[in-house]
Amino acid sequence: MAKELKDLTKRSDDYSKWYNELVVKADLAEQSAVRGCMVIKPYGYAIWEKMQRYLDDMFKSTGVQNAYFPLLIPKSFLSKEADHVEGFAKECAVVTHYRLKNSPDGNGVVVDPDARLEEELIIRPTSETIIWNTFKNWINSYRDLPVLVNQWCNVFRWEMRTRMFLRTAEFLWQEGHTAHATSEEAQERAIQMLNVYGEFAEKYLAVPVIKGVKSANERFAGAIETYTIEAMMQDGKALQSGTSHFLGQNFAKAFDVNFVNKDNKPESVWATSWGVSTRLMGALIMTHSDDNGLVLPPHIAPLQVVIIPIYKNNDQAAEISKTVNPIVNELRQAGISVKYDDADNRRPGFKFADYELKGVPVRLAIGLRDIENGQVEVMRRDTLEKHNAPLDGIATYIKDLLEDIQNNIYQKALKHREEMTRTVDTYDEFKKEIEKGGFILAHWDGTTETEELIKAETKATIRCIPLDGDKTPGTCMVTGRPSAQRVIFARNY
Amino acid sequence: MAKELKDLTKRSDDYSKWYNELVVKADLAEQSAVRGCMVIKPYGYAIWEKMQRYLDDMFKSTGVQNAYFPLLIPKSFLSKEADHVEGFAKECAVVTHYRLKNSPDGNGVVVDPDARLEEELIIRPTSETIIWNTFKNWINSYRDLPVLVNQWCNVFRWEMRTRMFLRTAEFLWQEGHTAHATSEEAQERAIQMLNVYGEFAEKYLAVPVIKGVKSANERFAGAIETYTIEAMMQDGKALQSGTSHFLGQNFAKAFDVNFVNKDNKPESVWATSWGVSTRLMGALIMTHSDDNGLVLPPHIAPLQVVIIPIYKNNDQAAEISKTVNPIVNELRQAGISVKYDDADNRRPGFKFADYELKGVPVRLAIGLRDIENGQVEVMRRDTLEKHNAPLDGIATYIKDLLEDIQNNIYQKALKHREEMTRTVDTYDEFKKEIEKGGFILAHWDGTTETEELIKAETKATIRCIPLDGDKTPGTCMVTGRPSAQRVIFARNY
Repeated sequence: MAKELKDLTKRSDDYSKWYNELVVKADLAEQSAVRGCMVIKPYGYAIWEKMQRYLDDMFKSTGVQNAYFPLLIPKSFLSKEADHVEGFAKECAVVTHYRLKNSPDGNGVVVDPDARLEEELIIRPTSETIIWNTFKNWINSYRDLPVLVNQWCNVFRWEMRTRMFLRTAEFLWQEGHTAHATSEEAQERAIQMLNVYGEFAEKYLAVPVIKGVKSANERFAGAIETYTIEAMMQDGKALQSGTSHFLGQNFAKAFDVNFVNKDNKPESVWATSWGVSTRLMGALIMTHSDDNGLVLPPHIAPLQVVIIPIYKNNDQAAEISKTVNPIVNELRQAGISVKYDDADNRRPGFKFADYELKGVPVRLAIGLRDIENGQVEVMRRDTLEKHNAPLDGIATYIKDLLEDIQNNIYQKALKHREEMTRTVDTYDEFKKEIEKGGFILAHWDGTTETEELIKAETKATIRCIPLDGDKTPGTCMVTGRPSAQRVIFARNY
Repeated sequence: MAKELKDLTKRSDDYSKWYNELVVKADLAEQSAVRGCMVIKPYGYAIWEKMQRYLDDMFKSTGVQNAYFPLLIPKSFLSKEADHVEGFAKECAVVTHYRLKNSPDGNGVVVDPDARLEEELIIRPTSETIIWNTFKNWINSYRDLPVLVNQWCNVFRWEMRTRMFLRTAEFLWQEGHTAHATSEEAQERAIQMLNVYGEFAEKYLAVPVIKGVKSANERFAGAIETYTIEAMMQDGKALQSGTSHFLGQNFAKAFDVNFVNKDNKPESVWATSWGVSTRLMGALIMTHSDDNGLVLPPHIAPLQVVIIPIYKNNDQAAEISKTVNPIVNELRQAGISVKYDDADNRRPGFKFADYELKGVPVRLAIGLRDIENGQVEVMRRDTLEKHNAPLDGIATYIKDLLEDIQNNIYQKALKHREEMTRTVDTYDEFKKEIEKGGFILAHWDGTTETEELIKAETKATIRCIPLDGDKTPGTCMVTGRPSAQRVIFARNY
């Protein structure tokens, strides 16, 4: 068994340690020399690339186009929207100089004090300000609307406590920014993109999510309304996995972006923004993986099938290859990504453990005896079950199996979430239940005071006010005041 | 005629002004509020995305995988390779603080002096240093080699004189970084990637390039050898369009990256790096476009065909759509990107000018009379020639036409380069010829002194020592000393 796998901490022993180790051992990412910044390794990046490709296609099918805006934002721009600067000023990377010079002591280089910028520049923590400053040039009339743009880029927020993929100082994301002639149209767009995120998470990542609205306290800095998709990890903690914001006219007013409407009257433009990030990698890992390593849903796995020959000598290896090579072609033609690992410097047992660690959905093992019997040994990563399958018609068989695995992984995660979701009516009960993890559906009076009290006493936050499901009103479990509907509480990442 | 087009400066009047105007009027990019940084608009970004897709596929077919490394580089890393820091220190964006705070005067935010970094961080001007610091963890044995990674990202070099796409402070690029067990293998990889760039430029961008080696003076900071593809713009100036570097063991030694070779002996790792950037957009624009606007080669055009209906009333418009809709489907099924522009708020003449400005390779105009005659009016953007084509079999016709346009654009650029390339033998002749623009093939004694003298007196630089073509030795046109082969001189962007 591969050393990496043998050493992997068990989830039941220390879930957090298991996660950190798995990210490194499965070759997804590692810490860099720069505090809080990670290196995304090729295997991890390949998963991110697949996410990007699917999301990008989904965005474009709604009329969104990609563009690119500057990395650096003048400090004064941040201040133009009051809530926005309040939310981001404390975690800004600030560029103050534009040149280094040789150190007077002859040792390396130092900042050149003569090259100080007149106005400091901030590495974008998000791009509303620079984008709305640009939109001013693009929008004059209702005929220029809507503007629907997205950018794939890096952003920087100086977080003090970081964890790979979940919370890093620099991260990769997409940020969509749209401009509209009416409030209704902007609100519809915010919901539309939330639905895109929800569909993506469930269909490709096999991560079930609850769509909802954030409480005022958890809103994006500068938003009128923040919508979210919330996922539940195996340890029962919530992970906010994507957000979509209705920004009202806040940024249009801050950056003076007006248009002449159909009645020939000037009006401020309505806005949305929406984003998902490399945090989705964390959601993917923590929703499905197990003590043997990653479990990747076939739709997002860079490698879906690995074939490993079992042989005693070179003659046998050559014989097996004759059967396997056409199978590889057959699978590829069926659109399945497959690798035939016939490297002879690693033993089959080592390979088995390695591909399990990497979460490859299907492993085929094949020896001469199998070929004689016209079959192959199939191991599915989600259940770790082995069985034999006929070589005849193998591509169709595997294609169906991959769909079955995708579905099974999703259903398993959904079942877990449902089992870990409970309804409670009293605060005493709530305090007991929250200790067990999971989502708690409870009534809340809608005030920030009550929300903060609950957080201080139980470490639970309101993840969202669900858009779907039970809308029966009730009374707040803490204050007894009226509650419009139950909301979801959880401890969260 | 569209106002934008009418106002476009002619190339013969002011080539540089024509370029700057065209970038803006064709909706490719615009200046941002941040000095030296541009906004890449959706139409420009769509072209860049096509470039990325093709290049990425080409890289991957050679075994390269994508990854991602941190944006910020510790200042001390830059100093570890002497030539490298010398080359980049003067144009670095320096992050010194990690927090803003409310201004004491209540007006906006200021840098928090208590949040000064212990060590300043540099926004990557290129990533050799942070990547080789990472490779140290990845490489122990010859079995770990080669490492072949690439990243698509933004980089920052504080240029004082910027021009959109050609030279901007922030730009988008890809940087490939490879690590090898032998010098030979690394040198082969550097050449291999140069060839990928050459093939991409010629096949997709229709930009003919000369492949060659840079003189010592023009080498990348830290390289043993820099290879380049050099293109000639319409005004006869050269544009360096992509470079590939053999880095020897410089970075491995600076970052202490060693491996145990097959003979069980420790050795420093051999390296390459290679990159192309959004500068390719400049090459594309300046190689093909004309006084009517962009001319895009069909292989890289986001929109290949536009269809414009010519009608007098809504009934006619509806009638035309009945014929055109199946044609649109037919073209799409043939893999052609097509737009049917039946918007009735712009007149056909305005649309014609607009799509010419945007460089759409083929325009089809169709009215009721055309439908009766079973034909359509075809305008090809490269020659601006109009003719009629039969509606029957239109998809095959257009597919062939697009290939013909692609080829014609390339041949035209090649012919221009060949006409503007001359061989000279004396320095007097050289001084006369260089004034006329273009590439001058001349003998040079191989010294930096002579190269700098020529540059000071004529503003011409050595673009490259060509890898292909005439290798006859001779004598330097300036000093009369021996010359191994003719090299290419030109003024350049």
